[in-house]
Amino acid sequence: MTFWLNRNINKLNWRVILNMIGFALIALSGLLMLPVIVALRYREFHLLSPFLITIGVCALCGLFLSRLKVKRNAYFARDGMIAVGLVWICVSFFGCLPFYFSGQIPALVDCFFETVSGFTTTGATILTDIESLSKSLLFWRSFTHWIGGMGVLVFVLAFLPKNNEHTMHIMRAEVPGPTISKLVSRLKTTAMILYALYMALSVIELLFLLAGGMPLFDALCNTFGTAGTGGFAIYGASIGAYGSVYFEVVITVFMFLFGINFNLYFFLILRDFKPILKNEELRWYIGIVALSIVAITINILPLYHTLAESLRYSSFQVVSIITTTGYATADFNLWPTLSKMILFFLMVVGACAGSTGGGLKVTRLMIVLKKIKLNVQKLWHPHKVEAIMVDGKIVDKETVDQVMAFFGAWMILIAAATLVVALDDFDFETTLTAVYTCLGNVGPGLGLCGPTGSFALFSALSKIVLSLCMLLGRLEIYPILIFLFPLLEIDKRKPVLRRRRED
Amino acid sequence: MTFWLNRNINKLNWRVILNMIGFALIALSGLLMLPVIVALRYREFHLLSPFLITIGVCALCGLFLSRLKVKRNAYFARDGMIAVGLVWICVSFFGCLPFYFSGQIPALVDCFFETVSGFTTTGATILTDIESLSKSLLFWRSFTHWIGGMGVLVFVLAFLPKNNEHTMHIMRAEVPGPTISKLVSRLKTTAMILYALYMALSVIELLFLLAGGMPLFDALCNTFGTAGTGGFAIYGASIGAYGSVYFEVVITVFMFLFGINFNLYFFLILRDFKPILKNEELRWYIGIVALSIVAITINILPLYHTLAESLRYSSFQVVSIITTTGYATADFNLWPTLSKMILFFLMVVGACAGSTGGGLKVTRLMIVLKKIKLNVQKLWHPHKVEAIMVDGKIVDKETVDQVMAFFGAWMILIAAATLVVALDDFDFETTLTAVYTCLGNVGPGLGLCGPTGSFALFSALSKIVLSLCMLLGRLEIYPILIFLFPLLEIDKRKPVLRRRRED
Repeated sequence: MTFWLNRNINKLNWRVILNMIGFALIALSGLLMLPVIVALRYREFHLLSPFLITIGVCALCGLFLSRLKVKRNAYFARDGMIAVGLVWICVSFFGCLPFYFSGQIPALVDCFFETVSGFTTTGATILTDIESLSKSLLFWRSFTHWIGGMGVLVFVLAFLPKNNEHTMHIMRAEVPGPTISKLVSRLKTTAMILYALYMALSVIELLFLLAGGMPLFDALCNTFGTAGTGGFAIYGASIGAYGSVYFEVVITVFMFLFGINFNLYFFLILRDFKPILKNEELRWYIGIVALSIVAITINILPLYHTLAESLRYSSFQVVSIITTTGYATADFNLWPTLSKMILFFLMVVGACAGSTGGGLKVTRLMIVLKKIKLNVQKLWHPHKVEAIMVDGKIVDKETVDQVMAFFGAWMILIAAATLVVALDDFDFETTLTAVYTCLGNVGPGLGLCGPTGSFALFSALSKIVLSLCMLLGRLEIYPILIFLFPLLEIDKRKPVLRRRRED
Repeated sequence: MTFWLNRNINKLNWRVILNMIGFALIALSGLLMLPVIVALRYREFHLLSPFLITIGVCALCGLFLSRLKVKRNAYFARDGMIAVGLVWICVSFFGCLPFYFSGQIPALVDCFFETVSGFTTTGATILTDIESLSKSLLFWRSFTHWIGGMGVLVFVLAFLPKNNEHTMHIMRAEVPGPTISKLVSRLKTTAMILYALYMALSVIELLFLLAGGMPLFDALCNTFGTAGTGGFAIYGASIGAYGSVYFEVVITVFMFLFGINFNLYFFLILRDFKPILKNEELRWYIGIVALSIVAITINILPLYHTLAESLRYSSFQVVSIITTTGYATADFNLWPTLSKMILFFLMVVGACAGSTGGGLKVTRLMIVLKKIKLNVQKLWHPHKVEAIMVDGKIVDKETVDQVMAFFGAWMILIAAATLVVALDDFDFETTLTAVYTCLGNVGPGLGLCGPTGSFALFSALSKIVLSLCMLLGRLEIYPILIFLFPLLEIDKRKPVLRRRRED
């Protein structure tokens, strides 16, 4: 068994993978300088050592790993997948150390959960008293959203010279959604453009929030949470704490914008409006948001009396949930079942492909629905071979196939994770929505893990499983599921060896 | 619009479809003679007229429809699908009339729900006081399970001379699961064999129950409920009312047997054991049942103190739920969340294809899991083209495709139906499991519609939607979804007309 495992794993290009992890850790140590500045500004001198120790550890490990000599240049998709999976796990682990060293989050598993939740832009928190956390830690917590937003690796790869073939595999695993198209031929440039767009939108939101009179610290943290579609708030009452319609409108608009495929912004800059108008996913996204807002507004009207109030809360919540941000202005746990169910299904749908949002993605839902429609039509015209069209182009069979498999994998993962979390014996609603919200990278669930609750109540085992769900959701399943491969092969060890001889 | 609709629908062979409905109604009027005998036996003379009026109406409508002259012999799959869908709806409507005419179930929508639940072998009930129903009505209610079990049409087609090509399409739509194979070449004979097996197994169960001292009436009703994997009980406490280990063991064993692909019994009779031993679905089915029993037995041990008690309740409930029968011996609503979640997922999985059970079917789950496994393996060996194997044979791409689409359609139907049922504003658990249990043809859900609850509390709209879910689940979605076709085509009316000219 071990012998076989070793032989099989030896085929991986471990040195390239470790190199990638090394570069990511060096980048992380650089990013950790920002909360140090915040700590100095707010005179939180006792927090300097937790941050500086972490920076030191990251830099040392990073330098060591990145200097490993690469022996082979052969580099396959699976190496890229494994690199991405491991980078996210390692970065989350090292990124959680400041929380742990500071002693403000005592349990290591809680620190890890919180940081995974940050980097995967989920926004699920184990904190029960958010305001008691120090400013620099709050800043780092929100900043992880912003870093996670476009993917640690897209970030790393934008600043490091790499062979194009390598990075393509990483890009494929990293950027969420099935339909990212290469905007320009050179990959490094692509990453830089996406990153510039991301930064520009963030700065605009920051300016809007500052213009409304929000303090700089709050404005920065809330922008990070919006841009990454993360949703960590710096108050227990989330965005509701400000009680300001202006802030809510600004954040609603920007959550919506960050849920759109970033390719479209690129076309916008090029003043090429045709692909934007033709984009079916965008139309579906707008349609789902509009319909959900109307339905919930009517449904919660008895709770809020005026139409304006009702519209205010419903529109914020719908956009926050479908973009998988997870900010709250109202305790939607108290809303009628219909509204809760709509929000529950929006969690699953998620934002557009190629955005910073999570969930299944609107495109996938679209393709599944079109497939069902096609099947019904085939019953009437059995001899008509029709294809699934998106944006006026035929979607090739392989993509449809992958989307359907993704849908199935998603449902099976939910079932598997739910069974583990159910061991904690919380109610049905809490258990099921905790898993959904983590896999969809949303943040709050319903029941005890709702917008006013926290994930603190779950056992360590559940927290690890939920962390894994967040990673699975963020990395579109396969970069994490690939680690199961050796397990899958155990039952047919011999055929594998035989097959390898045929190679 | 109307013009277009008419032109399109005129292409259907309506007369053949109406013929089929007519034959089904004649058969129904014959079957309704049995409860009349029960009414005479128990001196329920006031119930004679409700039954006799229904028989009269069925016979008249049936004779009229079956005598319509068929003009064209052209008969397509879609005509078969539509015939099956309409037959189930019509038979459910006419079959519910005795309840309505008797006045014992006052609302027509309740009568319809109860009868759909019967014929689809779901077993979800709107009765809050089952014992107050007259014996003959209780008998008819359970008997609908037995009729529904092998499909009204398989029954009809076994006794009527028909063109083989016609019936093949109906067979395909009717017999649950993706892998029914023609046992013998002539379809009528196939139906007869399946029917004989069904009857033989039922008689054996009946004898076992009688041997244990169960009264004939109870034994008959419980056998009907087991054979159809239906689950209507004649006591509020379901099978738990007897408090007898013997009855529970007999019923557990027969529920399990009725959840197995009927093809395998045919091989058993032929003493051809190889296909049985090679049958992967059977192994998975046994594996899932065994694992679930072990997990639940341990999980509920603190509630029942002795291992024997715990095993007794868990094994009955697991088999009852996975076969989608829905009998209960314990109020599993009070069990820990893990046990409830396991039962919830068993509802979705369902029994084997080609059995009388409902749900997604074990084969489909198997194929989805194998597809995911294949995808992970492809990441390691991208150039290996491997196929999905079941029972040592390659499953063709088209089948895999259909299974994945079915999985997607199932999930989307659950979401859509849940949103309507959510309007009633019951809790999350009740709303979601009510839809699952109906679509999976199980019977009880969790929360308010659990084993001690009833579906009486839902609104008329929800009852209609849930009835539709039962039909969608029973007929494997498409024979009901096909009625959406005209709606799907509205948005591209012109292209359709143009395309038809090209024909």
